Amino acid sequence: MGFLNQYFPVLGWLNTYTRQTLVSDLIAGAIVAIMLIPQAMAYSLLAGLPAEYGLYASILPLLIYSLLGSSRSLAVGPVAIASLMVSTAISTVATQGSSEYLNAAVNLSFLVGIILLFLRIIRLGAIVNFISHSVLSGFTSAVAIIITISQLKHVLGIEFPRATGLDQNIVALYTHLHQTNHITLLLSLLAFAILWLCKSKLCQTLNLLKLPLWFAQPLCKTGPMFVLLIGSILVWHFNLDQTKNVDTVGIVPQGLPNIGGIQIDLQLWQQLFIPALLIALIGFIESVSVGTALASKRRERIDPNKELIALGAANLGAGFSGTYPVAGGFGRSMVNHSAGAQTTIASAISATLVALVVAYFTPLFYYLPKAALGVIIIMAVIPLISISTFRECWKFNKADALTLIATFILVLILGVELGILFGIAISIALLLYRASQPHIAIVGRLGNSEQFRNTARHDVKTEETVLALRVDESLYFANTRFVEKFILHQCTDNPRFQHVVLICSAINFIDASALETLETLVSNLKDKGVILHLSEVKGPVMDQFKNTHFLKKLEPGQVFFTTDQALRTLTKT
Amino acid sequence: MGFLNQYFPVLGWLNTYTRQTLVSDLIAGAIVAIMLIPQAMAYSLLAGLPAEYGLYASILPLLIYSLLGSSRSLAVGPVAIASLMVSTAISTVATQGSSEYLNAAVNLSFLVGIILLFLRIIRLGAIVNFISHSVLSGFTSAVAIIITISQLKHVLGIEFPRATGLDQNIVALYTHLHQTNHITLLLSLLAFAILWLCKSKLCQTLNLLKLPLWFAQPLCKTGPMFVLLIGSILVWHFNLDQTKNVDTVGIVPQGLPNIGGIQIDLQLWQQLFIPALLIALIGFIESVSVGTALASKRRERIDPNKELIALGAANLGAGFSGTYPVAGGFGRSMVNHSAGAQTTIASAISATLVALVVAYFTPLFYYLPKAALGVIIIMAVIPLISISTFRECWKFNKADALTLIATFILVLILGVELGILFGIAISIALLLYRASQPHIAIVGRLGNSEQFRNTARHDVKTEETVLALRVDESLYFANTRFVEKFILHQCTDNPRFQHVVLICSAINFIDASALETLETLVSNLKDKGVILHLSEVKGPVMDQFKNTHFLKKLEPGQVFFTTDQALRTLTKT
Repeated sequence: MGFLNQYFPVLGWLNTYTRQTLVSDLIAGAIVAIMLIPQAMAYSLLAGLPAEYGLYASILPLLIYSLLGSSRSLAVGPVAIASLMVSTAISTVATQGSSEYLNAAVNLSFLVGIILLFLRIIRLGAIVNFISHSVLSGFTSAVAIIITISQLKHVLGIEFPRATGLDQNIVALYTHLHQTNHITLLLSLLAFAILWLCKSKLCQTLNLLKLPLWFAQPLCKTGPMFVLLIGSILVWHFNLDQTKNVDTVGIVPQGLPNIGGIQIDLQLWQQLFIPALLIALIGFIESVSVGTALASKRRERIDPNKELIALGAANLGAGFSGTYPVAGGFGRSMVNHSAGAQTTIASAISATLVALVVAYFTPLFYYLPKAALGVIIIMAVIPLISISTFRECWKFNKADALTLIATFILVLILGVELGILFGIAISIALLLYRASQPHIAIVGRLGNSEQFRNTARHDVKTEETVLALRVDESLYFANTRFVEKFILHQCTDNPRFQHVVLICSAINFIDASALETLETLVSNLKDKGVILHLSEVKGPVMDQFKNTHFLKKLEPGQVFFTTDQALRTLTKT
Repeated sequence: MGFLNQYFPVLGWLNTYTRQTLVSDLIAGAIVAIMLIPQAMAYSLLAGLPAEYGLYASILPLLIYSLLGSSRSLAVGPVAIASLMVSTAISTVATQGSSEYLNAAVNLSFLVGIILLFLRIIRLGAIVNFISHSVLSGFTSAVAIIITISQLKHVLGIEFPRATGLDQNIVALYTHLHQTNHITLLLSLLAFAILWLCKSKLCQTLNLLKLPLWFAQPLCKTGPMFVLLIGSILVWHFNLDQTKNVDTVGIVPQGLPNIGGIQIDLQLWQQLFIPALLIALIGFIESVSVGTALASKRRERIDPNKELIALGAANLGAGFSGTYPVAGGFGRSMVNHSAGAQTTIASAISATLVALVVAYFTPLFYYLPKAALGVIIIMAVIPLISISTFRECWKFNKADALTLIATFILVLILGVELGILFGIAISIALLLYRASQPHIAIVGRLGNSEQFRNTARHDVKTEETVLALRVDESLYFANTRFVEKFILHQCTDNPRFQHVVLICSAINFIDASALETLETLVSNLKDKGVILHLSEVKGPVMDQFKNTHFLKKLEPGQVFFTTDQALRTLTKT
């Protein structure tokens, strides 16, 4: 059992599964399904696919996640950002509406799944650490804007061929603005109103009614389902699709997705590799962030390694269902949690309900106006545009804020993929720049103590003939010349120095470039009549030195145990 | 004067220029010229250009360097590694021997010059720090092997069309081996013998004769000139080029290079940008390394910024002379130094001598066997193959040694450009990997002192309810999740902990991602009933915190001035 538990967290939970847990999971699963169905269809259109593919992506992947996932409340399925990224990626290899387009989406799912599993195998899940918070935040805001603008044509009831790039989309919108379908626009405004009411007023009212929180909170999130219902009824009753030309979803094929029968295309995989990597990483970050946040509310933790496997397998499941990549959605997971989901069984229940809808009730969507789906998407992504994050970031760290704004602008101009790649490049370049300029403190004695502190910050006593300095970082190729230059400059500017004590308390390792530079430094200092000493050398670094001739070359320089010892010895003579 | 001195270091030296300094410079300049002439022609053939272009690259660039250079003894001109890189780069855009090939070489010179000047303008000379010692060492060894193999056909007197890639070269050599010209091979062996004798035996003999060092050392380096002389005389006397089909340099046009009249081709610049960047960086590193080493022997220093300008301008000079990129050569600079060069006037003298040779004496090279030039090249690059560097590296730091060997192999397999790019990528990936795993020490009190040290290394006293730990690095996106995970794991494993004290003595800044993570950590710990405190927070970091709500969110956690204070306070209750 222990062995299986390791791979299937749900088995552990089932040990303590009670009738009450089941009731909680049932309610949460049902509420998430109500939220998921409209969102799944909407995101599917955003990805450039027929509405049913979003539903297909909400069955098998959820079942797989419920077996393998380590988060009790993460709700997997189609998500907004990944949907846009999918449409961007596969638009470059196939025309929307063609069977190649659909095939590319399926291959992308497999690729994303394999990448996630591979990251687990080579233990490189930590790679997501290199997408910094600022890059992610700038990226998300920009993507939300791109998504919003892409949905305006549905909201206004305008028809024009798919435009690539934000600028072309805006131009197309502007030139077709006079064709706005006023009935569609009215439906959209109604949808906005319903969603807004559900989000703010309904919540307030329910609070006033003192309804229990687990009931009230999820109810506020059922707005999208109301929008579907009311929109469909209006179109059907007034025959708006016929008389007023309101665009609807139309025929949604009935029946479960056809598992298997996929054309794997390795050449396509080459072309889609970078987008797939980005979709995988960003989906993983989104899922792990929300999963961690929700787990910590229960004083639990999720296991990022298990999440890699669970999300990887869920994406393979999406591929086998013939649909596009999935991830853990932020909004739905929050709802799942507040509706009381106790285990991933809730996800399995959502999946079952979606499957029932797909199998029997798709004709209900015939009159569903696309405008309503557009509005649902826009309302879902608007909160992602966060100006306050930028403002706080600016106050805290200018470099981060500039990275954020640079990523934001680059995504808008260059598109999602190049944009985030440049953003990542910028933050890594900043990291390298900082790495090449380690903090060096010239230190002096604090009073008569054995403590040595930075002369720039504390009132400390320095010696006339001894320069004592501390490098606050390990020494390696990127920063070693900076340190060398710093010490040489100090000794040139202060010809009285006869000794330099390099305090190595923060040096955890030294690489070959740094060793070479240290050796050069020793002999350059000797030429000036200055002797280099080391102090507080850590054990592993000392072991490194002992493997080389460095300690011989250092002579007459010594290695002192403490800086205090070094200064007492060197100022005696 | 001060203003001009800033740009023209030579003006400063001329202030104290005496008749004796001039004599020293004259001797050094002449000796370098004797070494330079055969090398320049040999490297030119290595670059795939007619022999005279190496000589052209040894006139104007040297004159420019003598005006702008900050190193008294750096000898600029054609160098082996850059010559190979040039031939690799322009072989991809033009056929060797065509006028396009020559034109590409000239454009490459301009591009290298502009890149170096641009690096100065944007103050990014420090970019060379990111080519680590191990990468450079692996690269150099591999290039030396590639160069050696490329010259074997000249040494053996075999003719075959230019082969791209090391493997093709080896195959071509093998299949044509039976065509070896035995007379050429004999000449080559003679050349090897002369060079070896000059290098080892001549030096020993001169030492035994107790000749002054400044005279003896440079004399040992005149081997190449002997090889030229003896080789040419043998070919001419025995008519070897006619009767034995020995390949010679043939007609070398007489007269100075035609300054100007260059076709700038911007499309070519795009294609050549990456190779040009690599040639610029590696040339710059080589020049600055040898320049620094020689300057420190005089207890002086060179200014890398001035070197960027001087080498940039020298390469523009190479472009205007219609020839290929230059750099500071290792061997020739050493000779220049030991021959007593006092200022860059020595370089100007070398340039003048080369100019005289080009203007009047090129017919002397008619009978010069190409085999001799091949041997000169091989003997110059063999010392670059350094197995001892690898051995020392392996003893010191395994990761560095593996980077070295990986770069070495990648250069041999993928070629010089891709090889070094991958090498750089590997060392940056290692840097990022290390950056994502900061050193964290759980600390305890050292006896009854106020000192706290790593529990893993010292016999220290820890508290039952307080976890005190020190992160030895600034907190930023790449490492912050590692720290969060570490602390959460500790608290999960030890449910007795009520307080965590994060010692910030080594934290110089905190970025937005880290702030976010810290906030999450605070609330995750609170959920577990653990309170986070900070101690020894540096001034600038405290200022950062004060701009945000973090300190409020930290409550009831406190910020303590010292770790001692923190532990006394937290263990009181």
